[in-house]
Amino acid sequence: MKIVPSSVERLIEELGKLPGIGPRTAERLAFHMLKSDPVRATTLGAAIDGLHAGVHACRTCFNFAEAEECEVCGSLTRHRTTIAVVEEPFDVVAIEKTGLYQGLYHVLGGVISPMDGVGPDRLEIASLVQRAQNGEVEEIILATNPSLEGESTAMYIRGQLEPTGIKLTRLARGLPVGGDLEYADQITLGRALQGRQSF
Amino acid sequence: MKIVPSSVERLIEELGKLPGIGPRTAERLAFHMLKSDPVRATTLGAAIDGLHAGVHACRTCFNFAEAEECEVCGSLTRHRTTIAVVEEPFDVVAIEKTGLYQGLYHVLGGVISPMDGVGPDRLEIASLVQRAQNGEVEEIILATNPSLEGESTAMYIRGQLEPTGIKLTRLARGLPVGGDLEYADQITLGRALQGRQSF
Repeated sequence: MKIVPSSVERLIEELGKLPGIGPRTAERLAFHMLKSDPVRATTLGAAIDGLHAGVHACRTCFNFAEAEECEVCGSLTRHRTTIAVVEEPFDVVAIEKTGLYQGLYHVLGGVISPMDGVGPDRLEIASLVQRAQNGEVEEIILATNPSLEGESTAMYIRGQLEPTGIKLTRLARGLPVGGDLEYADQITLGRALQGRQSF
Repeated sequence: MKIVPSSVERLIEELGKLPGIGPRTAERLAFHMLKSDPVRATTLGAAIDGLHAGVHACRTCFNFAEAEECEVCGSLTRHRTTIAVVEEPFDVVAIEKTGLYQGLYHVLGGVISPMDGVGPDRLEIASLVQRAQNGEVEEIILATNPSLEGESTAMYIRGQLEPTGIKLTRLARGLPVGGDLEYADQITLGRALQGRQSF
């Protein structure tokens, strides 16, 4: 017996392909949309459909951009001496939200992952090395994720950039703010101990 | 500085209106869609846009239907003597998944909620009372949620149906399967005790 109409089934299937959306959440979302005003579904459908229109990779840093260069690269007030190397455009948004960074970015487009067949040539590493040699850059922050793959990608990039003599840094490791010693994993606690600061 | 392209901003806003999707999840989903193949976004967009097309309320039970009647009401194998009264079409799906129910449904379209201005006349209660008097119905299961509003809606419907003399039942209350006595709330445990069964 077909309990769920086919248009709903199709939507549940598509929603279920999104990350973090399991079959039950997909079902709940689809039924919610079906219950709400059809205009809202049309608006959301159009927003998803039009998502890629007018969005390109910035020709300099490979972040998402609406013009040829992204707003950060095109800005006159950002410090051109510092580049933060991140995995994904989403990481740029996260760092911007801190309001504490005034430099530029470089978006790799992923991490080196032999398991998934992603080698250094699939990432924007060559373009970073080239960019590092433009004479302006003084510091490159390797802001890849503190994961195994993020770490090894950072290591690889360090190898590529060391000959340039530019200062290379990593984001600090330690206890998350608001965290609890008791619940911190050993490695994080170890890093927090090693990186302890004078009070 | 505009870090997020406007098409992405628009999508984040629309996704954030869905239940259970906070601003961070909306952001993550939008960036995921932007990273994936544009064809997938178009497919999802079209699925959402076409969701309401061809879906109506069943004229008998008010569940979602693609024809005039839903598949359950139109079926020749379902037991026409029993009606399960549920709040939403989603509840029909949940009960169908158990594979243990062979009767018909009646979808109220919500619960009585004076706070939200929903009175009995806004729900499919009059149509239920009328349906109950068709001479076929022997049992009506009031399968509203075990919440305050679900309970009071069931109480109200009981008042309306009592004159018909039809057998009225409620879903059993007790400990959830796989649950743990220690973590059960007092009220659930109390109901489980009251409704204890011989072993």
